[in-house]
Amino acid sequence: MKQFFENINIKTNGQKLFEITDKVLNFIEKTKINEGIINLSILHTSASLIVQENADPDVQEDLLSFFDKLSPMDPTLYKHGCEGKDDMPAHIKTALTNTHLTFSIKSNKIILGTWQGIYLFEHRLNKQNRTILAHIIGN
Amino acid sequence: MKQFFENINIKTNGQKLFEITDKVLNFIEKTKINEGIINLSILHTSASLIVQENADPDVQEDLLSFFDKLSPMDPTLYKHGCEGKDDMPAHIKTALTNTHLTFSIKSNKIILGTWQGIYLFEHRLNKQNRTILAHIIGN
Amino acid sequence: MKQFFENINIKTNGQKLFEITDKVLNFIEKTKINEGIINLSILHTSASLIVQENADPDVQEDLLSFFDKLSPMDPTLYKHGCEGKDDMPAHIKTALTNTHLTFSIKSNKIILGTWQGIYLFEHRLNKQNRTILAHIIGN
Repeated sequence: MKQFFENINIKTNGQKLFEITDKVLNFIEKTKINEGIINLSILHTSASLIVQENADPDVQEDLLSFFDKLSPMDPTLYKHGCEGKDDMPAHIKTALTNTHLTFSIKSNKIILGTWQGIYLFEHRLNKQNRTILAHIIGN
Repeated sequence: MKQFFENINIKTNGQKLFEITDKVLNFIEKTKINEGIINLSILHTSASLIVQENADPDVQEDLLSFFDKLSPMDPTLYKHGCEGKDDMPAHIKTALTNTHLTFSIKSNKIILGTWQGIYLFEHRLNKQNRTILAHIIGN
Repeated sequence: MKQFFENINIKTNGQKLFEITDKVLNFIEKTKINEGIINLSILHTSASLIVQENADPDVQEDLLSFFDKLSPMDPTLYKHGCEGKDDMPAHIKTALTNTHLTFSIKSNKIILGTWQGIYLFEHRLNKQNRTILAHIIGN
């Protein structure tokens, strides 16, 4: 079995979903791994990973609005406020979604459902540089 | 190390938890893998995976009711409505639980706590055909 | 590829986050695995796993308070009450966070962001003995 590591770097500009499916597919293709797993680790605590529908853009708007209502940017709700009104909600949204995801690889392709895309879920308001470590084990 | 893939197909009939622990155990047994991991990928965005208590059935009812209150089937709350009043809540419930789960295998058995079962969590009202890919790496 | 298993045992005393990062690092170091993955499985349904900020302790207090408000210890809300007012909320909080987490190992170290720590998230009020299975595959 061989192993490969790659950093996926994403510049984000606000609370949104940023699709990374193609970057993940490209890395897998480059390694020529036929069967194996790919583990994604987001190296931050105020952005997360999520697998969601890639068809109707309204789904992503509704998701953002759901998470914002569930964990509003209201400083009176939290003790932790030193990093801005969006920071504690960002930690909560990260806790509710994923920091680590493992996918299966078959025939040099990640196995996903037809409507599934892999997204970085940015929870901060300001521009950020985000890093996701992608790690493949397989042969 | 060897690798094995199998589709676990489940016919669902409404918003419920469908236990798949036995199907997962049978697959592991068949492969004769002694030590390794098994990765489960649900190939849908309106049903998810969850590990929960397998003892008191009230727990499952309470879970369903919690998620329904948190993300109600109320069309006025969402922009995405074209696939039915249950579809956007289904995406939200999927975001809050799991699309991918990795378990450890030891002595040809999945390692689970005494009260843990693995479930497909169906979030749609109508009958659905669901597929979970199970993928084993080990020896 | 080699495989190693170890039980991480934690005595908890109430609803809190218990950091286990060092225990995980020590296990990896002991195995001398240079590159691979480590899968953590919590063997309980009323405590969970979470990756969160390890800097400001207020973050953890806010997290506890968020989850407590989202799923209050109010017996009138749940059918499942036989194991105490904290048990059904504990199952819900477990469903919303993680039972299984997979991390990447490189240079005999787990790959985590600067501010990320790995925590057992205890959801029960009374003292508990918790077990997390740690499983390494790598070389």
